Amino acid sequence: MTIRVGIVGISGFGGGEALRLVAGHPSFQLVYAAGEGSAGSRLADRFPGVSPKLAGLVIEKWDPDRLPALDLLFASLPTGTSAAALARVPTSVRIVDIGGDHRDAEGWTYGLADVWPDRIRGHGRIANPGCFPAATLTALAPLLAEGLIEPGNIIVDAKTGISGAGRGGGDSRFGYADSNENLVPYGLLRHVHMPEMARTIERLSSGSAAGLVFTPHLVPMTRGILATAYCRGRATTERCLEAAGAFYAGRPFVRVTDRPPQTKWATGSNLAFVSYAADPERNLVVAMGVVDNLGKGAAGQAVQNANLMCGLPEAAGLEGAPIWP
Amino acid sequence: MTIRVGIVGISGFGGGEALRLVAGHPSFQLVYAAGEGSAGSRLADRFPGVSPKLAGLVIEKWDPDRLPALDLLFASLPTGTSAAALARVPTSVRIVDIGGDHRDAEGWTYGLADVWPDRIRGHGRIANPGCFPAATLTALAPLLAEGLIEPGNIIVDAKTGISGAGRGGGDSRFGYADSNENLVPYGLLRHVHMPEMARTIERLSSGSAAGLVFTPHLVPMTRGILATAYCRGRATTERCLEAAGAFYAGRPFVRVTDRPPQTKWATGSNLAFVSYAADPERNLVVAMGVVDNLGKGAAGQAVQNANLMCGLPEAAGLEGAPIWP
Amino acid sequence: MTIRVGIVGISGFGGGEALRLVAGHPSFQLVYAAGEGSAGSRLADRFPGVSPKLAGLVIEKWDPDRLPALDLLFASLPTGTSAAALARVPTSVRIVDIGGDHRDAEGWTYGLADVWPDRIRGHGRIANPGCFPAATLTALAPLLAEGLIEPGNIIVDAKTGISGAGRGGGDSRFGYADSNENLVPYGLLRHVHMPEMARTIERLSSGSAAGLVFTPHLVPMTRGILATAYCRGRATTERCLEAAGAFYAGRPFVRVTDRPPQTKWATGSNLAFVSYAADPERNLVVAMGVVDNLGKGAAGQAVQNANLMCGLPEAAGLEGAPIWP
Amino acid sequence: MTIRVGIVGISGFGGGEALRLVAGHPSFQLVYAAGEGSAGSRLADRFPGVSPKLAGLVIEKWDPDRLPALDLLFASLPTGTSAAALARVPTSVRIVDIGGDHRDAEGWTYGLADVWPDRIRGHGRIANPGCFPAATLTALAPLLAEGLIEPGNIIVDAKTGISGAGRGGGDSRFGYADSNENLVPYGLLRHVHMPEMARTIERLSSGSAAGLVFTPHLVPMTRGILATAYCRGRATTERCLEAAGAFYAGRPFVRVTDRPPQTKWATGSNLAFVSYAADPERNLVVAMGVVDNLGKGAAGQAVQNANLMCGLPEAAGLEGAPIWP
Repeated sequence: MTIRVGIVGISGFGGGEALRLVAGHPSFQLVYAAGEGSAGSRLADRFPGVSPKLAGLVIEKWDPDRLPALDLLFASLPTGTSAAALARVPTSVRIVDIGGDHRDAEGWTYGLADVWPDRIRGHGRIANPGCFPAATLTALAPLLAEGLIEPGNIIVDAKTGISGAGRGGGDSRFGYADSNENLVPYGLLRHVHMPEMARTIERLSSGSAAGLVFTPHLVPMTRGILATAYCRGRATTERCLEAAGAFYAGRPFVRVTDRPPQTKWATGSNLAFVSYAADPERNLVVAMGVVDNLGKGAAGQAVQNANLMCGLPEAAGLEGAPIWP
Repeated sequence: MTIRVGIVGISGFGGGEALRLVAGHPSFQLVYAAGEGSAGSRLADRFPGVSPKLAGLVIEKWDPDRLPALDLLFASLPTGTSAAALARVPTSVRIVDIGGDHRDAEGWTYGLADVWPDRIRGHGRIANPGCFPAATLTALAPLLAEGLIEPGNIIVDAKTGISGAGRGGGDSRFGYADSNENLVPYGLLRHVHMPEMARTIERLSSGSAAGLVFTPHLVPMTRGILATAYCRGRATTERCLEAAGAFYAGRPFVRVTDRPPQTKWATGSNLAFVSYAADPERNLVVAMGVVDNLGKGAAGQAVQNANLMCGLPEAAGLEGAPIWP
Repeated sequence: MTIRVGIVGISGFGGGEALRLVAGHPSFQLVYAAGEGSAGSRLADRFPGVSPKLAGLVIEKWDPDRLPALDLLFASLPTGTSAAALARVPTSVRIVDIGGDHRDAEGWTYGLADVWPDRIRGHGRIANPGCFPAATLTALAPLLAEGLIEPGNIIVDAKTGISGAGRGGGDSRFGYADSNENLVPYGLLRHVHMPEMARTIERLSSGSAAGLVFTPHLVPMTRGILATAYCRGRATTERCLEAAGAFYAGRPFVRVTDRPPQTKWATGSNLAFVSYAADPERNLVVAMGVVDNLGKGAAGQAVQNANLMCGLPEAAGLEGAPIWP
Repeated sequence: MTIRVGIVGISGFGGGEALRLVAGHPSFQLVYAAGEGSAGSRLADRFPGVSPKLAGLVIEKWDPDRLPALDLLFASLPTGTSAAALARVPTSVRIVDIGGDHRDAEGWTYGLADVWPDRIRGHGRIANPGCFPAATLTALAPLLAEGLIEPGNIIVDAKTGISGAGRGGGDSRFGYADSNENLVPYGLLRHVHMPEMARTIERLSSGSAAGLVFTPHLVPMTRGILATAYCRGRATTERCLEAAGAFYAGRPFVRVTDRPPQTKWATGSNLAFVSYAADPERNLVVAMGVVDNLGKGAAGQAVQNANLMCGLPEAAGLEGAPIWP
């Protein structure tokens, strides 16, 4: 079975990673690529290493009313720009929205694939989680599901590589010389990913109100996210590790580790690493989650969702090991 | 007045930064340099950009019993290696110990210079704070002094550039290819700097017991520390900024800022930047402190301490602005 | 057909990349891994993202007299340490030596796979080219074969990422803080790769004497090599591009490009990019070659050689596109 | 004597470094700062570490007809944008143009300060050399002056940190994620700095025609330039080192070294390092020059020129040692 795939937002980092994964997928055939800045170019002009069989495909200007015959569309557009356009895509085309417009939208399913695969199977409209939520929620889910931490009192200190800020289109804050050798906290107490995380924490804890503090930081590296979450709970480190091991038993992409995870462990892959350090006497559980922000945090999870939507093996096209060093 | 200065540990990063600052100091004359790996070399062999007037000084093997006539010694030795040796240095030689052996030692004064300058003036034995404590305590001190946060419930998530791990001498964990594009949490719940921080928090809060969670992270950059501290308190952001502004009024090196501080703001300088974001309804104060780990976190603070010890202007030799970009 | 594969030198960067490629290869099964520093560890301890089916394999101490049943061995050992040991491996085991001990050795074939695939097919002992020669010779081969440049007058200015220096085992010159934000020329007029390059240039130009100047530089990045070669010749840019296009027609891994190639184009892949800029009036041809030093410059080319040795499709296990960004 | 100084182009990297050096200069007082993007901001808003005595200075929109009383103006504007405006500045105001518009202009003197200090003293209009010429010509000048190399046959392979590309104003090619872990050759055979270099080579060799090949490369680091020049000549390495030692005897900023120089040796300083490796039998001299592209390559040399113009000590305000690590 060959699934005809389109990608919109191909000039951005999420779209580019989707291209890499789609090109290597055994059941996907890329037949459509669209982007703003790169419309009119051949794929090989933008991606010199692209497979020869895709090299000549011309990038089109994104127009939901002029799509070729497609089975599946990956949309990686800036938040705020995709809702109206994606509404015009025929329902026969499955969509994974890597962008942020549908994570709380009617008719769309939230695609936290490692936690809720059964809710995704067979669906036609999946909203991919944000990169920070992907790292954070993967670490917290087992603890919340088991009631090992209080959902009302969670502090998340998150650190992301700079590709997480998007390709920028001219923002000198993300220029090399401004960003290199610099560590930048931002969006304190009001980051756009907070409601998504709070909402999902509540679902994971059967409706208890979430209380969340979230501080993201830009780290001078290209890829990778580490979320360090400080929670209240009386479980031991061992109990947390066991809970996570049981929660993710048989799941292909989450690795539970007794060492603090490093971002490079996940680079270029769809893996997530979670670990825990607890001090029951102090009512403290530290939960850590690592993902590649463009892998599990974007295109990797999107392909995993697409596999579930299409009834393919969940790990199809996602078996590649991380790059080291 | 010319003060005859020695530096021991010149091959390390802290010693190297001390050399740079001593060379540019209007009252200091370097007459002695000692190091393990570099004994026998001329300073210019190790530091190709060193001033011509110091270029020919030969680095000696460290021996506290064979010192030239000195007024002041900067010691930058690995923790655990300096206590016995420094005890043999004549009391006529003032010492700033940049290493970690004397921060709780009898006869030594803790040199948190921006907070307690009067305790340092005239003293002969100063223990320089660790780099993480320097960043963290500078941000917390005004809040603790004013009672705006609870000393018993402080979570510090700290991020340091890799020079903070020392020069390594062969640990491939700190090799370029292992460290670059990697973010590494370590020392969870048991980092060596915790007691120093807890002790000082208690002093700053008039003896109330400190409750401290501390998680350091290695960030792929050479210099810089950001400490993000999550505290309990009902003050507003404005109140915290005012408290810090008043606490540091007239102090030359601490800048209170209403934007989240970035590590690059301090690179190459002895500056510290502090800022705050609070949400009184949630009983939350986020305190942020930025320093250069080799500046305020090591050699810069050491020179500031030496200035105070010697009765010199506090900012002598430390006026240089940070490097940007 | 399943080929039983061993890797020796698994703790180093070349061995680690070989592991990643072997794990994703459709015909290879890893049955043996050996390393110095990591003997006794499970693969998952050293490579947290390794496939679950390999996670439990225990790394052994390298001993050529105690090998399991193997069809193929990748050896990635420091130059000077492998000749005696590899001589003891049974001839029934095919060997690709990624290290430098056999590039001019009797009984071994030089594995410049994109240029001389037919000499490699069916052979049992292949010496993988060095990383600098891989980048340089791939760019020069078409020009030399066509007589478009003089073999006696070639200046190669090469730049490599720091993983090219190996994992170091504690050399602080390759520590993060010493290497980051630093560009380092080394080995002027006497680099160990010069004879290998000169020898191959002579073979490529039918025996004419090679005259080669070679200057390598360490660049603060993890992966990637660019060789910029300044040659004497009267061909136009177009003629050089045509010659390369014809020379590599049908070859799967070499891309001829009319833009100067960037190292990131190849990262994580076995691709090589070559380009040319010529000024016939000045008797000048600039040839550029880009590879990933751990891909085409080490493990990628090793797998390509192994495919040729074993009669497999040349690109088996090597189709993955480069990582971007 | 206090010299009233203005800086135009304060938002860029060259202007920012000029600010740092002017602020620390014993005879300069900054009274005027102008910039496009930052007009209306206070200096402290753009430069959080700026000295408190300059913090409140408001950045103005650049208008050569509305200048305050000034003795000296540093202009750091994009090439092509400054000629008309600077022509309107009163002749009583000395100007150092860090930009590229006047390097071959009537009425302006080329400010290669380490080589021709006497031509600069007392002048009112100095065109600062470009960053690549500064690195290259400082290495070549002694060889050309002594006739040790042929001016008609010089190949310069140059590598620059990314701040050399300017602050970009939104060019995603210089964004962090596109530039990091990437090495990029550009401007082959037609870089804008070539005529400046060729012209100066001819002056240095008493009018012999220059033949120059120049290839710049962007290296993933913030600051630093290394020029590696391949020349024809029969001198030994020792002879070249001696010639350079004699040529720069007594000059404060050029260091002749028998090791290949590394870019980090110069970071944050106005130093230049030169070295040589020769093979007389092959008629080859390799000359290497290292500078900080924002130091000797821009603002450092500009201050040195200003010192010469104003009759101040040549090294005033420039004594700071490089930053390491």
